[in-house]
Amino acid sequence: MTHASKTPILDQIPTPDELRKLPESDLAQVANELRQETIDAVSVTGGHLGAGLGVVELTVALHYVFDTPRDRLIWDVGHQAYPHKILTGRRDRIRTLRQGGGLSGFTKRSESPYDPFGAAHSSTSISAGLGMAVARDLSHGDNKVICVIGDGAMSAGMAYEAMNNAGHLHSRLIVILNDNDMSIAPPTGGMSAYLARLVSGGAYRTIREAAKQLATHLPKFLYQKAKKAEVFSRGYWMGGTLFEELGFYYVGPIDGHNIDHLLPVLKNVRDNATGPVLVHVVTKKGKGYPPAEASPDKYHGVNTFDVVTGAQAKPKANAPSYTKVFAETLIKEAKRDDKIVAITAAMPSGTGLDLFGKTFPDRTFDVGIAEQHAVTFAAGLATEGYKPFCAIYSTFLQRGYDQVVHDVAIQNLPVRFALDRAGLVGADGPTHAGAFDVAYLACLPNMVVMAAADEAELVHMVATAAAHDSGPIAFRYPRGEGVGVEMPERGKVLEIGKGRILRQGSQIALFSLGTRLAEAMRAAEDLAAYGLSATVADARFAKPLDMDLLRQLAASHEVLITIEDGSIGGFGSHVLQALTDDGTLDRAGLKVRSMVLPDAYLDHDKPERMYVTAGLDAKSIVAKVLDVLGRSDDARGMIA
Amino acid sequence: MTHASKTPILDQIPTPDELRKLPESDLAQVANELRQETIDAVSVTGGHLGAGLGVVELTVALHYVFDTPRDRLIWDVGHQAYPHKILTGRRDRIRTLRQGGGLSGFTKRSESPYDPFGAAHSSTSISAGLGMAVARDLSHGDNKVICVIGDGAMSAGMAYEAMNNAGHLHSRLIVILNDNDMSIAPPTGGMSAYLARLVSGGAYRTIREAAKQLATHLPKFLYQKAKKAEVFSRGYWMGGTLFEELGFYYVGPIDGHNIDHLLPVLKNVRDNATGPVLVHVVTKKGKGYPPAEASPDKYHGVNTFDVVTGAQAKPKANAPSYTKVFAETLIKEAKRDDKIVAITAAMPSGTGLDLFGKTFPDRTFDVGIAEQHAVTFAAGLATEGYKPFCAIYSTFLQRGYDQVVHDVAIQNLPVRFALDRAGLVGADGPTHAGAFDVAYLACLPNMVVMAAADEAELVHMVATAAAHDSGPIAFRYPRGEGVGVEMPERGKVLEIGKGRILRQGSQIALFSLGTRLAEAMRAAEDLAAYGLSATVADARFAKPLDMDLLRQLAASHEVLITIEDGSIGGFGSHVLQALTDDGTLDRAGLKVRSMVLPDAYLDHDKPERMYVTAGLDAKSIVAKVLDVLGRSDDARGMIA
Repeated sequence: MTHASKTPILDQIPTPDELRKLPESDLAQVANELRQETIDAVSVTGGHLGAGLGVVELTVALHYVFDTPRDRLIWDVGHQAYPHKILTGRRDRIRTLRQGGGLSGFTKRSESPYDPFGAAHSSTSISAGLGMAVARDLSHGDNKVICVIGDGAMSAGMAYEAMNNAGHLHSRLIVILNDNDMSIAPPTGGMSAYLARLVSGGAYRTIREAAKQLATHLPKFLYQKAKKAEVFSRGYWMGGTLFEELGFYYVGPIDGHNIDHLLPVLKNVRDNATGPVLVHVVTKKGKGYPPAEASPDKYHGVNTFDVVTGAQAKPKANAPSYTKVFAETLIKEAKRDDKIVAITAAMPSGTGLDLFGKTFPDRTFDVGIAEQHAVTFAAGLATEGYKPFCAIYSTFLQRGYDQVVHDVAIQNLPVRFALDRAGLVGADGPTHAGAFDVAYLACLPNMVVMAAADEAELVHMVATAAAHDSGPIAFRYPRGEGVGVEMPERGKVLEIGKGRILRQGSQIALFSLGTRLAEAMRAAEDLAAYGLSATVADARFAKPLDMDLLRQLAASHEVLITIEDGSIGGFGSHVLQALTDDGTLDRAGLKVRSMVLPDAYLDHDKPERMYVTAGLDAKSIVAKVLDVLGRSDDARGMIA
Repeated sequence: MTHASKTPILDQIPTPDELRKLPESDLAQVANELRQETIDAVSVTGGHLGAGLGVVELTVALHYVFDTPRDRLIWDVGHQAYPHKILTGRRDRIRTLRQGGGLSGFTKRSESPYDPFGAAHSSTSISAGLGMAVARDLSHGDNKVICVIGDGAMSAGMAYEAMNNAGHLHSRLIVILNDNDMSIAPPTGGMSAYLARLVSGGAYRTIREAAKQLATHLPKFLYQKAKKAEVFSRGYWMGGTLFEELGFYYVGPIDGHNIDHLLPVLKNVRDNATGPVLVHVVTKKGKGYPPAEASPDKYHGVNTFDVVTGAQAKPKANAPSYTKVFAETLIKEAKRDDKIVAITAAMPSGTGLDLFGKTFPDRTFDVGIAEQHAVTFAAGLATEGYKPFCAIYSTFLQRGYDQVVHDVAIQNLPVRFALDRAGLVGADGPTHAGAFDVAYLACLPNMVVMAAADEAELVHMVATAAAHDSGPIAFRYPRGEGVGVEMPERGKVLEIGKGRILRQGSQIALFSLGTRLAEAMRAAEDLAAYGLSATVADARFAKPLDMDLLRQLAASHEVLITIEDGSIGGFGSHVLQALTDDGTLDRAGLKVRSMVLPDAYLDHDKPERMYVTAGLDAKSIVAKVLDVLGRSDDARGMIA
């Protein structure tokens, strides 16, 4: 006998078209089934759980009320979009989430027409949505644009810039503020406190109040010049003046788990808004799954887990994670030097600074999703003799690039940049790759750029950064666990611009920056099978380069190959520039190659597979050497 | 007989220490003299005039009330700091402003201890000041930190991020909002409208009202939890709730030209503030100089001028400016293609989009000082089939770098980036140099990067960008006027990734990207005097490279030199990578060099002198060629 489906209604609605044919009375059940399906899928794949569970009802209500994909629905960040994916024709692949070849863990334009804008970094949705709304206006269209953005994402300057511009353009745009009082970490900042006051200021608007509020005020506010007194008096009882002062019409707060409350408000906004509207919806992260509700931080991103118990699989660790090594080393250094302070942009747990903060709560600063401010705030601290460690993922430092250039590097201030998640990052995919940091940092005068080859090296680099007081310094290290090397008791201060030789050979020089070193060592051993003797060196510094080491490698080998888990324009480019500058490459007989990330955005997969795709594994290094020597046939012979 | 000094009091106060010994009754006269001295100095040097004139009284009052430089006074942007420089020991050099070897046109740490933080890009002051305030708190110090920021700068997300964080940290920090309703262009956006409502909402607070307001509310607000009703009722009559909701205590608006109003408020804030305070000061740009008051935009940045008539010197133009060529070409293209839209981040005049906006007001978007939003807003427009031209100075696009990567390049959206002020920019100095754009853009997959060699090339590149619908494309061009080449009637669409040969020689290949081409041509002629035959090629594209052309140059010349007005990591690096990748450099006999900007931030000077310093003029190219050939002695002979 076949047992009954646990999701009988969900089974009948492969796309929002079918959803919209259901009576409203079915939607609560749809939400229940969607929640179960989300939990079940993520228990298999791992991924972001709490955020999606918090917006199940909102997802159902939005697709029910709006005519997606004609109406553009943009999920900020996109990691809460798993229920959205299930509802928009991707249920059959939902258990491939974040797996190689499977669905992305974020929204992605190439994946579905229901994803009008891809995301992964936060706070982009209002800008993108405003662009779409303006395009609609220019084309005299009538479709709606809806952006769903979390309260944490509202701390980013980009969201403010977009609201400021939307208020000015007065284009029809619906922003749903999904307020769960938590992005990844509990949010900090004035905006967060303000939202908390709004919510605590009274019960949610009841459906009747909300409808009345809309009926009474929306047309008046939007069609006439609002009288100042009225706006302020509304502010008095609603508290929404901040958004109104930026030019938005504010509605809320509304219970985001009550479909009966959501539907009339969304319909009203859909039908009556003539300018930018902000709907303040209050949700609970992890809603409906007790383990996730109880520990929203632990269930933000999960491994595979047991649905009944909530127990997450613990991947066996062979070595401590780079993140933890960084944090523990920084704590040790900070115990010896009270000028060391640490800054994170809303990633205390991701960067390990939660640990640092437990030991040094007064010397730890979580500035919110605000990389621009984080960098210049650190610069200000540095002017006063403090030693700020700005711990920001490589990909997120892109948000603070101008501040790195203008406020730190030009002024030669000793800000320390700890760049976690350098190189390819696995399941988070191309949006989170730390691919460009060496290129965009090493071009800056005054900047020192290091990359850790293993976790022991990271310990030394933290010590080196702490000791480096003459200017800015950055050190990068990858996601995930170390390689299991013996750990030093204390980091030693490295000489700036000096690399090291790990293995001395005679024909082939493999000159590595960062954690590709292990593959270079493997490649060197494999090359022996071809009768080739390889030297392996670790540059440690992309800037300044170890010119003595580089000249020595160039002078005493037939082939010199640079290897890095970064893009063109970085370490390899600096090496080539140096070798040509001083005439080394004029010498006949030296063959140089640089192995870098390919000129493409690599889809998510297991990191080691991504590096194979990228051609940066040991086998690819061997193949490159044989190719340079004109011995590619040998390689094919070995493989066959 | 000696005539009496026009500035008798100013002559007696070389530093703020002497200023602070004066009776308050002298300060209005000090302000008058300071204003005259500022006008006189700028009439000789040119530079930023209106902004400085607007803050003369504020400058005097701040240095009088606060104990600078022990108290940290941070001028946002810094172009309003000429009166500050006169008052802080730099009067003797004030007529060297923006001249080679002279004072910077912005604040600069290396110039004076009274400049605790350098600036030039906007909206950094609150972040830096908060860093200094936190450092003071950690050190248990008691000095004050004061940031002076304009209303235009408040539209930047960075300022919001900083306020948000300041509200949370509750550190003692004084932000002076200098509201002149104008940064460079009239500001747009919700914040601007909000500030206008605050000011129009009533007369300025009188000194008595302001004092009363402070006495009554400041301690109560800061020492106790404010009662909600009270905050809102204060908001009702003061209108300052937006800042208060972010955690600031708001005071204002105050007449910024009335020293008698400024002094008591600043003293009160100095003595009583225990958390972040925002003092809203209203000023008039160009105040006290009728020509500047009448045309604040024309007197924002000026040439040398006649003090009596206000008539500015008109430098004779030999050719139209690149900016104007860009704007006029884009207008032509937009007349033929109604999908073309243009976006500026508060620089309509600097980018030429004011001209575009006159022809296409509905297709022109000034989003405020908000580069992050500008880029993603453009991406949103592109998803809907529009052709956005995002016109942003090279140096300012650093502010939108993550958005270029994450929202444009990864999604392969056809946003067009028009990068004005590429290369060295002259009087604005290192903070405004467009040095890194090729490095930080050409490393991105999907991105096409062009550089115009002259103004006719710019016409073609605008046409090429308009036609390029398959992904993002950027084109860069310098500040200033073109070289005077004949202009095409209409731009032709260039083949992507194809360069051109301008002069065919046989021994030396000069491969140029951008406007160094003219110097390369001059160098080629000069090389003939040494019996050397030089080819000159214009790459046009840094990405994708013209590999056919590159291989041809490499195969048929003894020396190949790349030349660009950009940093390492850019065009030259890509050429070296390409030449090594395909084995070209393995061939004995080819000598390659790349000439790039030096690894240093070059101080302001005339651009042509800066390029001599940088070693990127014709003479330096010739010297490089001779050096590569081992004929440096020949060069010395010629010079001697």
